[in-house]
Amino acid sequence: MTKIQIGSKLVYQVRQPTIFLLKIAAASTQHQVLSDESLTFDPQIDVEQCQVGLEGNRLHRLVVQPCQLSIAYQATAELTPEIERPRDVGESEAAQMPPEVLTYMNPSRYCESDLLARFAFEEFGQLDPGFGRVQAICDWVNRHLEYSPGSTTATTTASDVLLQRTGVCRDYAHLAITLCRGIGIPARYVSGYAVDLQPPDYHGFMEAFLDGHWYLFDPTRLASTLGLVRIGVGRDAADVAFSTLTGTAAMLEKNVWATSLGSQLPSSQDPAVSTA
Amino acid sequence: MTKIQIGSKLVYQVRQPTIFLLKIAAASTQHQVLSDESLTFDPQIDVEQCQVGLEGNRLHRLVVQPCQLSIAYQATAELTPEIERPRDVGESEAAQMPPEVLTYMNPSRYCESDLLARFAFEEFGQLDPGFGRVQAICDWVNRHLEYSPGSTTATTTASDVLLQRTGVCRDYAHLAITLCRGIGIPARYVSGYAVDLQPPDYHGFMEAFLDGHWYLFDPTRLASTLGLVRIGVGRDAADVAFSTLTGTAAMLEKNVWATSLGSQLPSSQDPAVSTA
Amino acid sequence: MTKIQIGSKLVYQVRQPTIFLLKIAAASTQHQVLSDESLTFDPQIDVEQCQVGLEGNRLHRLVVQPCQLSIAYQATAELTPEIERPRDVGESEAAQMPPEVLTYMNPSRYCESDLLARFAFEEFGQLDPGFGRVQAICDWVNRHLEYSPGSTTATTTASDVLLQRTGVCRDYAHLAITLCRGIGIPARYVSGYAVDLQPPDYHGFMEAFLDGHWYLFDPTRLASTLGLVRIGVGRDAADVAFSTLTGTAAMLEKNVWATSLGSQLPSSQDPAVSTA
Amino acid sequence: MTKIQIGSKLVYQVRQPTIFLLKIAAASTQHQVLSDESLTFDPQIDVEQCQVGLEGNRLHRLVVQPCQLSIAYQATAELTPEIERPRDVGESEAAQMPPEVLTYMNPSRYCESDLLARFAFEEFGQLDPGFGRVQAICDWVNRHLEYSPGSTTATTTASDVLLQRTGVCRDYAHLAITLCRGIGIPARYVSGYAVDLQPPDYHGFMEAFLDGHWYLFDPTRLASTLGLVRIGVGRDAADVAFSTLTGTAAMLEKNVWATSLGSQLPSSQDPAVSTA
Repeated sequence: MTKIQIGSKLVYQVRQPTIFLLKIAAASTQHQVLSDESLTFDPQIDVEQCQVGLEGNRLHRLVVQPCQLSIAYQATAELTPEIERPRDVGESEAAQMPPEVLTYMNPSRYCESDLLARFAFEEFGQLDPGFGRVQAICDWVNRHLEYSPGSTTATTTASDVLLQRTGVCRDYAHLAITLCRGIGIPARYVSGYAVDLQPPDYHGFMEAFLDGHWYLFDPTRLASTLGLVRIGVGRDAADVAFSTLTGTAAMLEKNVWATSLGSQLPSSQDPAVSTA
Repeated sequence: MTKIQIGSKLVYQVRQPTIFLLKIAAASTQHQVLSDESLTFDPQIDVEQCQVGLEGNRLHRLVVQPCQLSIAYQATAELTPEIERPRDVGESEAAQMPPEVLTYMNPSRYCESDLLARFAFEEFGQLDPGFGRVQAICDWVNRHLEYSPGSTTATTTASDVLLQRTGVCRDYAHLAITLCRGIGIPARYVSGYAVDLQPPDYHGFMEAFLDGHWYLFDPTRLASTLGLVRIGVGRDAADVAFSTLTGTAAMLEKNVWATSLGSQLPSSQDPAVSTA
Repeated sequence: MTKIQIGSKLVYQVRQPTIFLLKIAAASTQHQVLSDESLTFDPQIDVEQCQVGLEGNRLHRLVVQPCQLSIAYQATAELTPEIERPRDVGESEAAQMPPEVLTYMNPSRYCESDLLARFAFEEFGQLDPGFGRVQAICDWVNRHLEYSPGSTTATTTASDVLLQRTGVCRDYAHLAITLCRGIGIPARYVSGYAVDLQPPDYHGFMEAFLDGHWYLFDPTRLASTLGLVRIGVGRDAADVAFSTLTGTAAMLEKNVWATSLGSQLPSSQDPAVSTA
Repeated sequence: MTKIQIGSKLVYQVRQPTIFLLKIAAASTQHQVLSDESLTFDPQIDVEQCQVGLEGNRLHRLVVQPCQLSIAYQATAELTPEIERPRDVGESEAAQMPPEVLTYMNPSRYCESDLLARFAFEEFGQLDPGFGRVQAICDWVNRHLEYSPGSTTATTTASDVLLQRTGVCRDYAHLAITLCRGIGIPARYVSGYAVDLQPPDYHGFMEAFLDGHWYLFDPTRLASTLGLVRIGVGRDAADVAFSTLTGTAAMLEKNVWATSLGSQLPSSQDPAVSTA
């Protein structure tokens, strides 16, 4: 069990009445239990909490009149992941996969697995099936991309990244997801908090469906998979943007943190970690 | 009430053990009641029916050994749509939209509404909100595209179509969906059967969320919205491909039909039709 | 006759031996006579002047060892453009065009006229041929794009711009060139200096081939076509980048200026101006 | 010396007055001497021969009234290539390259070397400079692409091909050209006839500038570089389309042939062949 304190503070200058859709609150799941959670707004504003998408991501919706708005979120997350030895985790057979994961084989906005299937098969089709194959994909992505903030935009896709070979966490995740889908492994995007991420920010990583469970991978290698706190999951970043605004508001400040409360995170040596 | 007889026959030469995911069976909904339904395979094969995606689309999954496989589907659908006068149908306010429709505001694989939002706002942002605005989008799409089988492929997106200005039903639907999302109207792709479609085939059309309901639109104008029988819905065609194969099989034959059993379909004069 | 003083100063921190290809010196043509020209380097460096491409653009090539390098260019340009009344300038017939302009009908890296031909025909195919039609294209580009520094990159193409509807001078020119080629009018990119451009910088504009001459257009409307001093021409910006470096150097400073020496530039009222 | 008989016959149904720009006649160069050349039209039509582009490609222009038009071209080409041992051919230094080849370092419509430079450097930047490095690029292209007629269109680019990994001769050439430019080697597209090409057609291949000369490469490996007869060269296929039509005409027939008149072509063992 790992205990992680997470939080973020956002400040906006709201210039017109603006609808905020926020996806910054951590998920409550069997393997991720939240305590001491608070989400506060200054000035105070009525907020609606709802669940959206196939996986019931938490969404906070609020309508804000012109003002300077501070949003403060914090919680403590207790993680109790399932941990396996990588070599024990095989791939699920397509004929047996639970129907609800099939959606995560489809191409999506930033993960054009239809375009990259042949590439994926050529590079990774001959590897032994299983956890190690997804690791090989993540290694390939990590080795071939250069982490370069500002080199991509909100509309950059996996194909773009494969060609230009630079990006940030969301781009790494998109490319790895796309390559997984390309060889028939369901894969999805996860947004969240990551312990001791440098520079501190919301993080984007991924899950692949193997042997009946969703396993976590971070192709950037910037964080231990044992220190990832889930906000939401989706087909790609389009589904879990931390904020979507309709109106006019400028972000003045963004602070994100995640700290392990207990002892140091066990050095991972890349175990197979599942929290979903 | 309209009664429509639908069906399709597919013949494949299966060369290796192949997994078929079929989305050809009509949906059962409050407004679409099926009777005399049959789905048969020759040779006989065990088939699993399941539900996938946010909307529970029906999916038939089967594993087929090498053979010549015939798939025959037929049913009678009774449609009892809600019909409104277009002028009575306004737009839903983003602040009030049911959470489950928010997903259909996100960009998707073939509907890059993030890329085309500015275009959409410029062309349609000043029009009066409501059913008529979606109609204006569909009219624009219909007027600016040339229906041209073979001019697009399975990976063609709304952006491609907007530039090249040719396409088939799925391209028309993708572009109209994208432009709706671009101005903040949730929109989604619907696959189905269409009465007297020429040339006969599965059809692709769309729904926009207005005034609390999903309204049907066919930007190709090749079919009356009163003669559309729903198979499934999704963000775009990626979610409702009529067949997805893993293995090796060649399609030898495809026959699709849809006939109105009663009197002729009422000439539409573009009523606002909702069946979801 | 207009007399324009132009110049630019560039400062680079050169970190490794680096080859510089500079295209910053104005062209000498029948309609553009240079005087008091100087190009100096501090520290002093051997520089080779050569001519490249179909139109013999001036290029300065130098190999620079690690240092802080200052490049200073200045000249006085006397412009004696041919000026016509727009209504007197028709289009050239494709069957009669001089062979050397046919190249400027082909699609190029940033001007995908093959992709946008149908769009161009639909929007501009019915207009009366002649100078006014190119003006209509430039007006359309000006009206539909928002001038927004930073919204595009060095790899942005006319298609991208048509979709996203923002850009800077090079993007405006690329889109207008592409639309001209799309309806069969040869068009090319011109880099240069522009009198009183705000903010001051090198400028990118275009020429269309009409009635046997190349006529100048600036779709950004940021400068009078009577105050444009030509550096070079090409199919698009790929051919006339003001500097191309092989090695490692960081630009520390860029200053560009162009001032009319005589009286104010005649208010243009959009005459047809040809200097090539 | 190799003597090659080449020819092509094209038949068009011309439905409206149509301008034809033909690039089907072989080039006359120091290393390629033509004899017994004829270009005939049935019905007879006035034809203008001109030279276009940087390299003076031969172009035949004709205006055709509605009719069924037959175009017959034939010639005998004597090739006297320079042949070197690959290991003797190094790369030219950028600082010393003749100015006229610098143009072939720029990205072009179908060869987006700006997008793929990082990819090219990563894959090929560490190899020993010289002929062998271009060979390695061609090998890579040959190994990673599947030759698949119909898998690409007239607007497919090198980036598209790199992702989808299928194509025809022009796509192979575009990708190899792009990768060469990406690591700083000037490269260009060559259209021509190829001895015993199967299936018979016009062919597209490439030249890279090494050690002061343009060397021939055919990344498809469908033809010996000793049996290539040059029509024209350009930045990419946009410059050397065998026919460009303005008007309306349908191609009814296309026949292309190239036969070695002497003994069999020497088995190549990949010599370094230069004819330009």
